[in-house]
Amino acid sequence: MKKYAFGVDIGGTTVKIGLFDREGAILDKWEIPTNKENHAEKVLPDIASSLISKLAEKEIAREDIEGIGVGSPGSITADGYLRSAVNIGWEELDLTGELTRLTGFPTKASNDANVAAFGEMWMGAGKGCDNILMVTLGTGVGGGVIVNGEILSGATGSGGEIGHIHVEDNENEPCNCKNCGCLEQYGSATGIARLARKRLAKDNEKSSLRDIEPDKLSAKDVFDALKAGDKLAREVGEQFADYLGKGLGIIASVTDPERIVIGGGVSRAGEIIIELVEPKYRKYAYPPCGKAQVVLATLGNDAGIYGAAGLILRKTK
Amino acid sequence: MKKYAFGVDIGGTTVKIGLFDREGAILDKWEIPTNKENHAEKVLPDIASSLISKLAEKEIAREDIEGIGVGSPGSITADGYLRSAVNIGWEELDLTGELTRLTGFPTKASNDANVAAFGEMWMGAGKGCDNILMVTLGTGVGGGVIVNGEILSGATGSGGEIGHIHVEDNENEPCNCKNCGCLEQYGSATGIARLARKRLAKDNEKSSLRDIEPDKLSAKDVFDALKAGDKLAREVGEQFADYLGKGLGIIASVTDPERIVIGGGVSRAGEIIIELVEPKYRKYAYPPCGKAQVVLATLGNDAGIYGAAGLILRKTK
Repeated sequence: MKKYAFGVDIGGTTVKIGLFDREGAILDKWEIPTNKENHAEKVLPDIASSLISKLAEKEIAREDIEGIGVGSPGSITADGYLRSAVNIGWEELDLTGELTRLTGFPTKASNDANVAAFGEMWMGAGKGCDNILMVTLGTGVGGGVIVNGEILSGATGSGGEIGHIHVEDNENEPCNCKNCGCLEQYGSATGIARLARKRLAKDNEKSSLRDIEPDKLSAKDVFDALKAGDKLAREVGEQFADYLGKGLGIIASVTDPERIVIGGGVSRAGEIIIELVEPKYRKYAYPPCGKAQVVLATLGNDAGIYGAAGLILRKTK
Repeated sequence: MKKYAFGVDIGGTTVKIGLFDREGAILDKWEIPTNKENHAEKVLPDIASSLISKLAEKEIAREDIEGIGVGSPGSITADGYLRSAVNIGWEELDLTGELTRLTGFPTKASNDANVAAFGEMWMGAGKGCDNILMVTLGTGVGGGVIVNGEILSGATGSGGEIGHIHVEDNENEPCNCKNCGCLEQYGSATGIARLARKRLAKDNEKSSLRDIEPDKLSAKDVFDALKAGDKLAREVGEQFADYLGKGLGIIASVTDPERIVIGGGVSRAGEIIIELVEPKYRKYAYPPCGKAQVVLATLGNDAGIYGAAGLILRKTK
């Protein structure tokens, strides 16, 4: 194993990059803009020149670089081929091959949510476990499944899409994916706000959430009110937890994780998320698969660069 | 790779054994009884002596055996350690280590349902695919997930338990696992008969199923009547398919299989199962994960010995 590796996390606005030593310590991190013009044709060349400049700046020899790990939006198969990344503008791109041609370094890549899960397993809340289930509660619900220390990418690179499992039969509004009743419709920040608006509209029960304009109501408002003792907000929190616990219970019954990691903006509400969700997960899971620890993610926005570097640096058994 | 391998499928009443050549052709197969006395202490020695006798009978040299693959009921981790197999009477058993000590051959083992899925991927309906989802519809609902050519065993060896995912919120009767609303309660042979009895009790609609005593009504009766044009039986079939399709759709959204294989006694009803279930799976799956082929298993009761031998013989990429 050589001395260093790069972890690259490609996002819709910026590309986050980290320089790691072989033990997984982060030596430097920085960002460059994601130039999406002309089908984002500049993104990989921009990344390549940023990496090469960093080597010059740090006076690191090319021979000391083990490789580049990349997380990117879209469907990426286990061999690092990108089939499609609508948000960036890419389609049918040999992402790893191209970055290797541009830099000379071996490259591995996977979907960004899966890579974040890999990062949490390697250096975050899943450290020490080979089997984890991670769910990221942001604007949407993303996730990743790590099986025996490897990312579950699936046949088309769409593995780990926890946000789009069906958890509610009685739903008429469609999800972004066009199905009805996806976990994302109840477990995301927008989903929680929607649950709250629906609950508020149901009757006139007193709640501090009524002081907020309905279309400005956020998941954070719900959890703040819940923590302050608001009964209606707790009801909404319990409803969210029932959906998320059901989804986690179902997936855990098939993937049998050692630890379940909850991350993303919604998880900033803190331990209350675990208190609410854990009993529901245990209720819904097949009993032998219902004993995983449920914990909050610890790497925050750096999970992506950690996971990307981990694709190169993590020793397999 | 040496010339031969054994595939061993341990069941509650008999142990099925196959002798395979390195290409996966089955050269001989036979059965021995499962002696469950004294915590089934004789089962592994009985298997070992049966294998050794077979070598003598066939005049095969020990040096020509690559190893032994085993499928067994219970929770077996990826390294072949059996944590518990209630049906056999085993607990905390170093199954692979013990068989190696008794025979001198390298041994690999996994849960029987997972091994059957592996067999269908290697030599059956999943041939050519590295990512499959198999569901076995028998007295219960079993299953297995193969990811990138490997069995998904999970942290405790309980991976792939498709039968116990939650698919119905409005269920009061408990499943064998004590939860309520498991796929097994609607997708198994007993589950289908139960759906039929419930439907018959609902009103007086004419149906040939009324000629059968309710407690003798079987899943086969339902599919026979459905094929003969019975409207009520079709309704029951659609209901079964909706549950199974929902379960498969949910799991496929996370594991992203290339092919979904349906096996077990219920699948003997034939192509009607695919016709009923496939559209429901496509309806419930996250669209990028909703394009897998849905096919009937082809190895029947031999899936277990094939899969077990495959643990030893299948070349990984």
